[in-house]
Amino acid sequence: MATSLKGKDIINTKDLSVEEINLILDTATRYEKIMDEGGRLMNMSGKVLCTFFYEASTRTRLSFETAMLRLGGQLVSVAAATTSSSAKKGETVFDTGKMVQAYSDVTVIRHPTVGSAQELADGSDVPVINGGDGAGQHPTQSLLDMYTIIKEKGKVEGLTVALAGDLKNGRTVHSLSQLLSRFGVKFYFVAPKALAMPEEITKELRAKGVEITETEDIMAAVPNCDVLYMTRIQAERFEDPAEYEKYRNAYVVTMETVKKAKKGMIIMHPLPRVNEIAVEVDNYEGAAYFRQAANGVPVRMALLALVCGQE
Amino acid sequence: MATSLKGKDIINTKDLSVEEINLILDTATRYEKIMDEGGRLMNMSGKVLCTFFYEASTRTRLSFETAMLRLGGQLVSVAAATTSSSAKKGETVFDTGKMVQAYSDVTVIRHPTVGSAQELADGSDVPVINGGDGAGQHPTQSLLDMYTIIKEKGKVEGLTVALAGDLKNGRTVHSLSQLLSRFGVKFYFVAPKALAMPEEITKELRAKGVEITETEDIMAAVPNCDVLYMTRIQAERFEDPAEYEKYRNAYVVTMETVKKAKKGMIIMHPLPRVNEIAVEVDNYEGAAYFRQAANGVPVRMALLALVCGQE
Amino acid sequence: MATSLKGKDIINTKDLSVEEINLILDTATRYEKIMDEGGRLMNMSGKVLCTFFYEASTRTRLSFETAMLRLGGQLVSVAAATTSSSAKKGETVFDTGKMVQAYSDVTVIRHPTVGSAQELADGSDVPVINGGDGAGQHPTQSLLDMYTIIKEKGKVEGLTVALAGDLKNGRTVHSLSQLLSRFGVKFYFVAPKALAMPEEITKELRAKGVEITETEDIMAAVPNCDVLYMTRIQAERFEDPAEYEKYRNAYVVTMETVKKAKKGMIIMHPLPRVNEIAVEVDNYEGAAYFRQAANGVPVRMALLALVCGQE
Repeated sequence: MATSLKGKDIINTKDLSVEEINLILDTATRYEKIMDEGGRLMNMSGKVLCTFFYEASTRTRLSFETAMLRLGGQLVSVAAATTSSSAKKGETVFDTGKMVQAYSDVTVIRHPTVGSAQELADGSDVPVINGGDGAGQHPTQSLLDMYTIIKEKGKVEGLTVALAGDLKNGRTVHSLSQLLSRFGVKFYFVAPKALAMPEEITKELRAKGVEITETEDIMAAVPNCDVLYMTRIQAERFEDPAEYEKYRNAYVVTMETVKKAKKGMIIMHPLPRVNEIAVEVDNYEGAAYFRQAANGVPVRMALLALVCGQE
Repeated sequence: MATSLKGKDIINTKDLSVEEINLILDTATRYEKIMDEGGRLMNMSGKVLCTFFYEASTRTRLSFETAMLRLGGQLVSVAAATTSSSAKKGETVFDTGKMVQAYSDVTVIRHPTVGSAQELADGSDVPVINGGDGAGQHPTQSLLDMYTIIKEKGKVEGLTVALAGDLKNGRTVHSLSQLLSRFGVKFYFVAPKALAMPEEITKELRAKGVEITETEDIMAAVPNCDVLYMTRIQAERFEDPAEYEKYRNAYVVTMETVKKAKKGMIIMHPLPRVNEIAVEVDNYEGAAYFRQAANGVPVRMALLALVCGQE
Repeated sequence: MATSLKGKDIINTKDLSVEEINLILDTATRYEKIMDEGGRLMNMSGKVLCTFFYEASTRTRLSFETAMLRLGGQLVSVAAATTSSSAKKGETVFDTGKMVQAYSDVTVIRHPTVGSAQELADGSDVPVINGGDGAGQHPTQSLLDMYTIIKEKGKVEGLTVALAGDLKNGRTVHSLSQLLSRFGVKFYFVAPKALAMPEEITKELRAKGVEITETEDIMAAVPNCDVLYMTRIQAERFEDPAEYEKYRNAYVVTMETVKKAKKGMIIMHPLPRVNEIAVEVDNYEGAAYFRQAANGVPVRMALLALVCGQE
């Protein structure tokens, strides 16, 4: 039987088979080509997306909403769900799932608490896509990151990927390292000791035979990696502002950094950046972060169409 | 002349004739049937709905917005109108009515103050639908409640309906009892004495010859009613939290309750529930509250199309 | 070559040639005529507008959004961008411009800081329209004001326009006086001394040969002007509430005022009004302020279609 995602919830990339991941990325590639050639997609005509965001995330919300519109669909939006009457009155996320299934054909949820996306999906008969649940998963970000690498470098297999910055608190790098580890990637994990990748993740990956170099020195990675994936040191994770100040400029990519890079190295960032990448680097041809953000649209188009069986 | 709602504001169910109510419910039934059969409605193609919510109400807003989209229409949305510049700068609701008529073909307003929906309608040449005005009216909730009873029980005439919970502060039960009293329904009003149905309502209904039994004991009603309509004890209405604690668990429907129910009794709730209905009850076939929420879409579709003359 | 606005950002009316202004107003007139005759425009079918509002402005946002929908387009909306994750995490407006270009075909920004609209435009390859940047510019308001005068009075050339109220802090009157001064208009500037039009503006206009009468007495202007443009005394600009109280009722237009008006005088106001114009004046045939608000739709339709090359 052909691979299908119809009716499936997208909560964690671990739930997706390699065939399913390839189906998503191939579909995204096809959609992007159609749009680049000036074509117009109407797969989701007559369908309604509900975006339910208990936590602000402009980029994730807008790219899902634009994706839906680019497929000819429509949307209803709860941009500040924590202040919604239901949440304030004490409704469970499960009951909210019962609500959204009545008002939409597919739902995207963003929530500060790990497990909330699954809880909403448990309550809902329509497919639910996890737009980030606290320190948990952000599967669509990982998929668009992988899509970006393939588009920029032609493949993921055999590449060396450096993840740099706050690897302790960064949900994005947790998800991404787990996803890429299934596709033959070698890693540099670049972080100050206090912000190192959690040991359960490095253990899990090494147990699967993945090659990992841990370092505090970004210049140990730059000359050897095909992808330099920068992340923001997240001020909101530090209780002591002085502690944050110590790390906020731990890694800043400049044109000096780029000069020492492996030929063809691309630079990625989930955005927003604060000062991890100097503005001067924007003109470097390997500066892929804005293209990466744009890739969110075709990848999310593919996901929406596939889970709704409208591909 | 045939009954028509074209151009009419929907502020209070009292303004609606029996013929108009039947037209709304029949239209909703027809729309639901078309959608169930996979059909698509385009009555509101080219029309714009403005939802203007001075008070959060996720369920009401989303179901109106989805209703508009399911009719092929479009929408603009003010989900937090109290923080809107106009309201903060001191614009009257009448002047806001002058604004919304320029930007939409039909407007839904939710406002914490009784009479605001009428004030907006006074300023506006386009039809205005009251999405709840404070302790006043919530006519579309009452209409979808009545629609639900007919769909579940085949009729309203001759039924016994128990309204239970906070009958003092519950706008929903005020509107609903007034609406159903016009269609030959008998009532149980189940509430702690401090939260009893306001005397002006019981007086008004009894003056019309409606049979009402008032009780504090929910089990007096359960074996004898066709519809058990639960409502939330509204924490936000109590100044003293201790007072709220006294009543919050006044009535909790469990499978034990259901065992003693009249055969075929349905359970309704305007939602969100806090703990008035145990989750175990969700699997009871008479548990109609999630179906009731879903009925908001066809009923609001009917209202939007009818007042815009697009039926 | 024919005048075209395709791909152009609309930041300041000073950047627009007389030909471009005429193109915008003529296009708006044509669109309004089509809609008045019951026609439907689909120029923006398949296009997405992003409204990015760092400051609430219900009227400006809704009229842009409705304009987009009336052209057959779609929209994504950030109604409270200051609380968006990107802004809170410290993203520059330039980087936000890089984001919005990936998610829309045209963007409208409202921001409390002068120069922000230009900064977003610098980051974005898609056209950006300034929906008001702090004490800076509000070009689309000025264009719809000029459109209103032409529609009501048949022309702008040779008219006498009185601007009254808070001329010091009113962005609207700054932009409008600069725009109209290019089209042969004479002015009365009516304001308490403390709220007079900034000297750099009166100097600039007089240097261009524009005739200006400055006065504190509104009745010096009323019998002699074709347009009386009232503005709100902006409470939020006063640090001392007592100071505000002194001025808030400085000018209140009543039917007594209207009786002394030049024949055919129209009254305008950018709205919301607080009490600058008595409600009784609404029935005066020259009361153009609500029609003015409605004119925002065709003018913004013209702007959206023209900058997207979809006219």
